[in-house]
Amino acid sequence: MSAPDRDFAQGKGLLAPGWAGSPAEAATCDAAVLQAMLDAEAALTRAQAALGLAPAEAARAVTEAADAERFDLRELALRGREGGNPVIPLAAALATAVPGAYASYVHRGATSQDILDTAAMLVAARTTAPLLADLDRTARALARLAARHRDTPMPGRTLTQHAVPTTFGLKAAGWRSLVLDARDRVAAVRRSLPAQLGGAAGTLAAFHAHAEADGVPLREPGPRLVAAYARELGLAEPALPWHTLRTPVADLAGALALTTGALGKIAADVLVLSRTETGELSEGSGGGSSAMPHKANPVRATLIAAAARRAPALAAVLYGSVAAEDERPAGAWHAEWETLRDLLRLTGGAARDAAELVTGLRVHTARMRENLSLTGGLIVSERLAAAVAARLGRARAGELLTNAARVCRTGGGTLAEALAAEPALQGLDLGPLADPTRYTGAAGALTDRALTRC
Amino acid sequence: MSAPDRDFAQGKGLLAPGWAGSPAEAATCDAAVLQAMLDAEAALTRAQAALGLAPAEAARAVTEAADAERFDLRELALRGREGGNPVIPLAAALATAVPGAYASYVHRGATSQDILDTAAMLVAARTTAPLLADLDRTARALARLAARHRDTPMPGRTLTQHAVPTTFGLKAAGWRSLVLDARDRVAAVRRSLPAQLGGAAGTLAAFHAHAEADGVPLREPGPRLVAAYARELGLAEPALPWHTLRTPVADLAGALALTTGALGKIAADVLVLSRTETGELSEGSGGGSSAMPHKANPVRATLIAAAARRAPALAAVLYGSVAAEDERPAGAWHAEWETLRDLLRLTGGAARDAAELVTGLRVHTARMRENLSLTGGLIVSERLAAAVAARLGRARAGELLTNAARVCRTGGGTLAEALAAEPALQGLDLGPLADPTRYTGAAGALTDRALTRC
Amino acid sequence: MSAPDRDFAQGKGLLAPGWAGSPAEAATCDAAVLQAMLDAEAALTRAQAALGLAPAEAARAVTEAADAERFDLRELALRGREGGNPVIPLAAALATAVPGAYASYVHRGATSQDILDTAAMLVAARTTAPLLADLDRTARALARLAARHRDTPMPGRTLTQHAVPTTFGLKAAGWRSLVLDARDRVAAVRRSLPAQLGGAAGTLAAFHAHAEADGVPLREPGPRLVAAYARELGLAEPALPWHTLRTPVADLAGALALTTGALGKIAADVLVLSRTETGELSEGSGGGSSAMPHKANPVRATLIAAAARRAPALAAVLYGSVAAEDERPAGAWHAEWETLRDLLRLTGGAARDAAELVTGLRVHTARMRENLSLTGGLIVSERLAAAVAARLGRARAGELLTNAARVCRTGGGTLAEALAAEPALQGLDLGPLADPTRYTGAAGALTDRALTRC
Amino acid sequence: MSAPDRDFAQGKGLLAPGWAGSPAEAATCDAAVLQAMLDAEAALTRAQAALGLAPAEAARAVTEAADAERFDLRELALRGREGGNPVIPLAAALATAVPGAYASYVHRGATSQDILDTAAMLVAARTTAPLLADLDRTARALARLAARHRDTPMPGRTLTQHAVPTTFGLKAAGWRSLVLDARDRVAAVRRSLPAQLGGAAGTLAAFHAHAEADGVPLREPGPRLVAAYARELGLAEPALPWHTLRTPVADLAGALALTTGALGKIAADVLVLSRTETGELSEGSGGGSSAMPHKANPVRATLIAAAARRAPALAAVLYGSVAAEDERPAGAWHAEWETLRDLLRLTGGAARDAAELVTGLRVHTARMRENLSLTGGLIVSERLAAAVAARLGRARAGELLTNAARVCRTGGGTLAEALAAEPALQGLDLGPLADPTRYTGAAGALTDRALTRC
Repeated sequence: MSAPDRDFAQGKGLLAPGWAGSPAEAATCDAAVLQAMLDAEAALTRAQAALGLAPAEAARAVTEAADAERFDLRELALRGREGGNPVIPLAAALATAVPGAYASYVHRGATSQDILDTAAMLVAARTTAPLLADLDRTARALARLAARHRDTPMPGRTLTQHAVPTTFGLKAAGWRSLVLDARDRVAAVRRSLPAQLGGAAGTLAAFHAHAEADGVPLREPGPRLVAAYARELGLAEPALPWHTLRTPVADLAGALALTTGALGKIAADVLVLSRTETGELSEGSGGGSSAMPHKANPVRATLIAAAARRAPALAAVLYGSVAAEDERPAGAWHAEWETLRDLLRLTGGAARDAAELVTGLRVHTARMRENLSLTGGLIVSERLAAAVAARLGRARAGELLTNAARVCRTGGGTLAEALAAEPALQGLDLGPLADPTRYTGAAGALTDRALTRC
Repeated sequence: MSAPDRDFAQGKGLLAPGWAGSPAEAATCDAAVLQAMLDAEAALTRAQAALGLAPAEAARAVTEAADAERFDLRELALRGREGGNPVIPLAAALATAVPGAYASYVHRGATSQDILDTAAMLVAARTTAPLLADLDRTARALARLAARHRDTPMPGRTLTQHAVPTTFGLKAAGWRSLVLDARDRVAAVRRSLPAQLGGAAGTLAAFHAHAEADGVPLREPGPRLVAAYARELGLAEPALPWHTLRTPVADLAGALALTTGALGKIAADVLVLSRTETGELSEGSGGGSSAMPHKANPVRATLIAAAARRAPALAAVLYGSVAAEDERPAGAWHAEWETLRDLLRLTGGAARDAAELVTGLRVHTARMRENLSLTGGLIVSERLAAAVAARLGRARAGELLTNAARVCRTGGGTLAEALAAEPALQGLDLGPLADPTRYTGAAGALTDRALTRC
Repeated sequence: MSAPDRDFAQGKGLLAPGWAGSPAEAATCDAAVLQAMLDAEAALTRAQAALGLAPAEAARAVTEAADAERFDLRELALRGREGGNPVIPLAAALATAVPGAYASYVHRGATSQDILDTAAMLVAARTTAPLLADLDRTARALARLAARHRDTPMPGRTLTQHAVPTTFGLKAAGWRSLVLDARDRVAAVRRSLPAQLGGAAGTLAAFHAHAEADGVPLREPGPRLVAAYARELGLAEPALPWHTLRTPVADLAGALALTTGALGKIAADVLVLSRTETGELSEGSGGGSSAMPHKANPVRATLIAAAARRAPALAAVLYGSVAAEDERPAGAWHAEWETLRDLLRLTGGAARDAAELVTGLRVHTARMRENLSLTGGLIVSERLAAAVAARLGRARAGELLTNAARVCRTGGGTLAEALAAEPALQGLDLGPLADPTRYTGAAGALTDRALTRC
Repeated sequence: MSAPDRDFAQGKGLLAPGWAGSPAEAATCDAAVLQAMLDAEAALTRAQAALGLAPAEAARAVTEAADAERFDLRELALRGREGGNPVIPLAAALATAVPGAYASYVHRGATSQDILDTAAMLVAARTTAPLLADLDRTARALARLAARHRDTPMPGRTLTQHAVPTTFGLKAAGWRSLVLDARDRVAAVRRSLPAQLGGAAGTLAAFHAHAEADGVPLREPGPRLVAAYARELGLAEPALPWHTLRTPVADLAGALALTTGALGKIAADVLVLSRTETGELSEGSGGGSSAMPHKANPVRATLIAAAARRAPALAAVLYGSVAAEDERPAGAWHAEWETLRDLLRLTGGAARDAAELVTGLRVHTARMRENLSLTGGLIVSERLAAAVAARLGRARAGELLTNAARVCRTGGGTLAEALAAEPALQGLDLGPLADPTRYTGAAGALTDRALTRC
């Protein structure tokens, strides 16, 4: 292997502005994955030592050797091709790195999947910690926005058109509730991430064989070892080896896909509301353009939107891998590795961008009010219809409103003016009824209620 | 609309052997969806009546009229094209179906999405009831299989090759634990399916407008109405209108995709284990072939496997729709309707097939034993290696085993025989060590433990 | 089977405003699929008769009996569960429907997949005919729009912000080029849709066996029969049976996914450009709302956008089914049936909606001009920068522009006014340079060139 | 930026045994992407020089500076976050790297997307070259296998069960035809990969502005420049800028997804046929296991199968990005970058693995023959049924065969023996009819025909 070959990184983030430099990048990079695999190997030997299945010195030696800096990532990657996974060369390299007497306690009784699955759970735990912190940061910023703008009216929009007024407070409170949904699901999955230990086909038989051969008089050494191993790792103890019972991965997939979707909802709203014509929101520090120095693009929202487009497909691959044959499948498992990592990265990156986005978000309340008046009051026609119907009946009210709407769309003027000309409505005080800023229904109360959630 | 046009059903199940005739089909057919929409409309009027926002007679009239049999499905479908959803023509048709005095209380203050989303949750609730029953039935049958075959040895297989022995009991217990994972997730989602009520843009303003216009002195009529409406429907009361806060749909997507995956795992195993050469399992009533009357195909497993291939992609569409702009998105919401229904159908159908599959599954224990001996004992080389290593050290053991394995692969004979010829191993009783049926590790204990879960 | 059971259609289009009532619906409904299967059966017998492998009377009898109206769709669907596909009961029912002497010539030598795959190709051919017509109709309407609006300036927008001017003509020409790309790919796939005939495992052996048993002295009867069968059906003759060589299905998947994407691009533009604040486009007949009678929603665009969100996931399932084991896979094939049909429906429906959308599209050129001036000339800062740089150098020009842009963003006024105050630019005629309607680059020439494609 | 930060590569292939060390990895790594972006920048300046829009010296200077080795990848990646893409910092860094007088000719008139899209097409061209070579190598090896095993009988299998005999030659010929389908599609897409050049919003206006400001009297400089630029790059000249007309990316998606599917079909067959019980195929150099030194896993097939599970989801993301709003979308485009690269890598890696797999594939013809006899002749019941039916009629033949099949399944013995006991069949020479190796239909002829394709 020549130097350049070793050197060319597959990725340094050039095509990944969404997660380059993020905590998720650091927690999922190859070195971090390697360290997690080594942590699993060391925990296994320590757990065996704790049960008398290995000498304490072996545990110490393996733990000391299990430092990613000591291994050549690129070489491991290339040697991983032979057997189809990186644990085979890693276990060999680790055995070489400990004093000869202890080499046989490296990876003893384990199968590659034990180490790789456990490492994946460790990486997931380490990536979701900053992810949760960013979700919390985002939720806090949204709580502030919702409280500050509890009564800031803006157009509610459905199918791209103004519908009735709403408030920016309610919108921010809704965003926050989605973020909390995501946080709750990620946190729940995180709490139950299990260690993996089953041996060659999930029966833990090798641990029994070694105990037996070594004359260690331990009843059910396998299950005890699983418990000790999980404790060493700070992961949950699984009821069964889950080599082909992939609920933990599927649960991660669902929680992460929901998270990018939740953040993607915020991004989608920011994108439409910061369009040049609408201008109700803008990012604190809009991104520049290579061609037009004046442009302030909603870059954070764009990158989140991109992540939200990719994550569901990655989650689908992981859900698809649940249907895995035998005690270890030929392909379904291998398809998970990069997919889960990509999903963790995308979600972690999107959470960082979301936190930046909402903490810096600029809310242009004047534009919101201007936009509310764009339809000449049609935006409150629902309320006027109710008032008119109470006086003249639904059918007649519908007629009047439809007429007035046509007048105001074609001739200009407001809906209130068009209705004021109607003799049958004399005496009805249309002014307050036609004021969009006073037709926000339960928006305030809903915002208050939503903010009580924590 | 001509008679044939009305008549041609888009689907009668011809291409859907996986769910034709299933409870999920009945619970999701157009008539069932229509009834659910009508149930939502009727609940809305009743809830308004309960709060004094509508006359009790209106509630009775709407409830009575809200019978799917009275409406022309095809006509509603075709008229739904104009506004892009079926609620618009339905609300009009329902208003016509009640006495004139009450027509104005039909759909009052609601938006189409209130009705369609609520109907989707009702349909989900109604479809997941038999789904959960089928998952429970499947889990019970698997518990019986696991208990009966707690000590039935069979080859454990990884990457298509024999690895070490396992038991069919452990396999069945693993299947069951996946099914219980699926059941738990579906049941949890089912318990929290929320009603939807927000009005035009999620502020509940129209309910306030009507209360005001009608002079009903009710504080915060909107939120109260949501609570009453949810009670009428037996659905959860949402904290906020969730027109574009789609966690409920995403949660369904995840739970259903996990379920098809879990059942797909069972199917994947049945398919490989019932291959002609393997013959360890067969379906109770294998399906015939149009060309070869003797063939007994694993039809139930095949149909489940097909569902497991489709469900993740459908779930991805639903996760993708979480990123929805505005107060109602132009497309993301519409993409959910058929997708969620298809996912409910596929999962419900797969659960029916799984229940049939496992209750009728035939386990060929003799073939399992025969297959265990196919590798001439290589399947227990791990145990022999441990025993030999304890005596001669790991390196020497590895050599001996590799040699013996070669001898036995090329020359025939068993691994035990090849090793027995080795002077250094005189006195080691290889017989029991080389018996695959005695090398099942913790399989029994793990099975017992897994069966304590309920 | 009770009457209601027979009766409840799985779908009458209630949740499918995008394709209810469309030619694609008619061409893909269960009755149409059944007819296609019967067409395949009849063609098989006729082809055998043509080669002397069956009596001519049998061919006539089967052809006459092969009428979908004579069969009970629901019963076939339910009986299809046993063997996992509808061809098994259909072949039996068809044999019953012909005079006894000819029954043995029904489905003779074929396997279920021969019939179902051939039927799928027939359905694809029949659905893509109106699809292509709708794409052509759409392309023609877009050619007219592009020609009419060749020089209609409007803001070009990138990352939601005004960038530089463009023309509506160029936009329409771009839409058209995508539609033609889609049309070309669908048409190419359509021309090569192959018949399927291979017998039980793709060797055509049964046809040889029957010829041999019946003493028909025909060399290579199998391949000859395939050719005759394809001719009868108007489908392409495949080089090999393609039971597990699924290029034809994958090619359909790709062409259809591109098509919904192409139409989805048009829809995406219509949706942003018809937003209330932008108002540059509107649908000819906007859809109503159940709550707000004044709203004119972009319904056609919304339904197309929904299809574009669903189609890629369906295509992914079909691409996934290419990796199919054995001579007929257990699941991959079955996953294709409804998926391909759904994809055909969605695409056909979207093409109908697109044709309606673009033929009725209203272009508000005045709004386009108004919007061009929203940024006070920043939209042409690129041009001004070039002119200033040619006079003062790039660095100095950048400074001036940045300053002027700030002045005009904060203080109002136009960019040209801010620059005119600059002494160094005296004598430069900023007026024409700052006119957005005169900065459309090669838009006209590109439009002309694009319209030469046919 | 600290040293470790610069250093940690996101990926060195640790989790990517499928493509680590492959030509696709080299052609898609960040350094390669950066070089492709620089190639695009240099080609742009050269093309401008060729038309008199820039000095020849500028072209030389930019071309010389455009060397990826001179730039700090990690810094570009991190700076790319600000504007959301790496071209903005790259253009700035490149301008700094050329003599001051020429800096203004760097990236002149271009937009980030021009450079990034062009780079993507260059990377696609450079990755598909070795991909096509590997597909050709695979196809040649398959042609040899098909020719050598033209008459090697083996069981044909449908729905996991023996159906009728086939030949390994036909199977290999089928694999080859899929590989050629993939090759043809990739090659066609490769030939039409277009350069991208449109400027800020696709009108090429900036090139006109610069020509005008600099007084270059060139008619339609934009379109001429596109042609020159494409020539410099060896890419196709696009009819229109395709910033949001994404057919080229979608076409790549389809061709690559088909390719992984095609290779995945081979892998799927190898996986089932090399199962321990079946043993008809094995990989030349099976991969080891970390726990069981004797195991020879089908590693190449496993890695290909994993790629085939992932590729369709990636393709779906790309198809989904076709529906992109405006002149540059906020998210859809960004979602393409890593997705397309991942898809190129997966496909390129799978092609390398496939070439290794098929060139080393071991075919165990003896096992194929043994397996043919596993069903006691039921595998040729179709042929016997034809022969018996010709003598006794279809109904009676069906009865006899069903009986005989039952006898032979339960009591042992062969189908021919069971039938021989039947008085009505005296005189029928069952021997040759019951020989599975003689019932391969048109397999030989089909193989021959398929091998004529090149």
